[in-house]
Amino acid sequence: MKLDPKLLADLEIHAEAAVDLLTRGLRREVERVGFSRAILGLSGGLDSALTAYLAVRAFGADNVLCVAMPYRESHPDSLAHARLVAEALGVELRLEDISPQIDAYFATHSDASPGRRGNKMARERMTILYDLSASEHSMVLGTSNKTELLLGYSTLWGDSASAVNPIGDLYKTQVRQISRHLGVPSVVVDKAPSADLWEGQTDEGELGFTYEQVDALFVHLVDRRQRRVRLLELGFDGDFVDEVVRRMRANQYKRKLPVILKLSGRTVDKDFLYPRDWTG
Amino acid sequence: MKLDPKLLADLEIHAEAAVDLLTRGLRREVERVGFSRAILGLSGGLDSALTAYLAVRAFGADNVLCVAMPYRESHPDSLAHARLVAEALGVELRLEDISPQIDAYFATHSDASPGRRGNKMARERMTILYDLSASEHSMVLGTSNKTELLLGYSTLWGDSASAVNPIGDLYKTQVRQISRHLGVPSVVVDKAPSADLWEGQTDEGELGFTYEQVDALFVHLVDRRQRRVRLLELGFDGDFVDEVVRRMRANQYKRKLPVILKLSGRTVDKDFLYPRDWTG
Repeated sequence: MKLDPKLLADLEIHAEAAVDLLTRGLRREVERVGFSRAILGLSGGLDSALTAYLAVRAFGADNVLCVAMPYRESHPDSLAHARLVAEALGVELRLEDISPQIDAYFATHSDASPGRRGNKMARERMTILYDLSASEHSMVLGTSNKTELLLGYSTLWGDSASAVNPIGDLYKTQVRQISRHLGVPSVVVDKAPSADLWEGQTDEGELGFTYEQVDALFVHLVDRRQRRVRLLELGFDGDFVDEVVRRMRANQYKRKLPVILKLSGRTVDKDFLYPRDWTG
Repeated sequence: MKLDPKLLADLEIHAEAAVDLLTRGLRREVERVGFSRAILGLSGGLDSALTAYLAVRAFGADNVLCVAMPYRESHPDSLAHARLVAEALGVELRLEDISPQIDAYFATHSDASPGRRGNKMARERMTILYDLSASEHSMVLGTSNKTELLLGYSTLWGDSASAVNPIGDLYKTQVRQISRHLGVPSVVVDKAPSADLWEGQTDEGELGFTYEQVDALFVHLVDRRQRRVRLLELGFDGDFVDEVVRRMRANQYKRKLPVILKLSGRTVDKDFLYPRDWTG
């Protein structure tokens, strides 16, 4: 499927305006609950690199703690790229090897699939960030972009769990654009996105389409709420549209809190609705 | 603070009607997404025991997998009580000792407080339930009651994370009432509620008030939306009311998804609102 260049142009955003909004938003969300420091997992990939850049703009390098949490089979480039980003920003990078606890668990579950192992690791990383956030009095920043969130291409209660996510309204293509604007090292911007779960894994190989393709579709499908017939007129392949819609729907549960079965007149997830930082 | 017996009477519910609604609700929520089996952590405490009883009513004993996940310092009674419940129900109880992976992590974080250790364990248990739910094609049931949810007396992305929670609209006092009705072993119904994080820990000791007191308050404060002045007229102590309200507000973030900073016209957590099992 060849994309009309006009469709890609629809994805372009005003990078400096976006950075300004996101930086101020981060400060607002963190400070309103009495925090002044942030913590995030730095994987070596682009999403967490951009999150780190935004966090340093918002809080200053001294108030941002980055944590690299490799597994012993993670690609060495991942840690090297995390170090590169941390050095460029002048932030502390703490190393937490997750191999001992992951290996301890899978010693008795040796038949687990790569998918199960990847999910266990993603959740282990979340538990470490939250544990360190308690000792460091820091808020956990999320690093999931809008493309991943819509596709459900993430681990529930794992990488998708955080306090505040500054990049969740940016498509992957826009994450790249803003990262270039902010000067994220080009080796990190230009490499193939990967969850680094096994040798040679890439997001686009696993998904079966490119981020440019799906992001261009999302602008029209999600943001502009176009119907299928209009999407086909724009040049999107029908099977591709159907597959993306199927993924979005099948993973809707990852974008929701647990369902509480209703009995009373006022149920926590349904009728007890206050803002996250409800105080007044 | 002595409670007027009339206030406790307000907490009573029709046990059989509640069980019927919750059992049908469980079946509906699990079957609508194509599952027919459920998995839950059985701690030895009352909340998870009642959840197991409801799950067996909904799906049959052969379709419910219970998992006991003790740490080496957990009280031996906890596992004994989990076994008692599983035997009474005729369900499989799988044992997953979390000590190896917890000890592996805290070997390099030996200064961690009991609170941090308890939260890490609660999250580890969530990761195990989700891992096993994948291999067993089972849905993860939540075991947090309404009192805990309102007080925020739980671990974010730990015991509070699940797919469906059948007891989240029942106050602790009501959990007791329904558990007695269903014949949960009395040693489990009558023991002092505890997270079993350290020797002698009890919920009520840690909270500083009893479940009967706070549940009676919640009926009037939350369900009936009474003002403070009316609560004092009913006999509730002003300092007690203020402390409970403070806890509710301070922990509101535990009842919310991560905040996504808004940039676009349609943001996942704000304008992209479909039901959890969105299909049509």
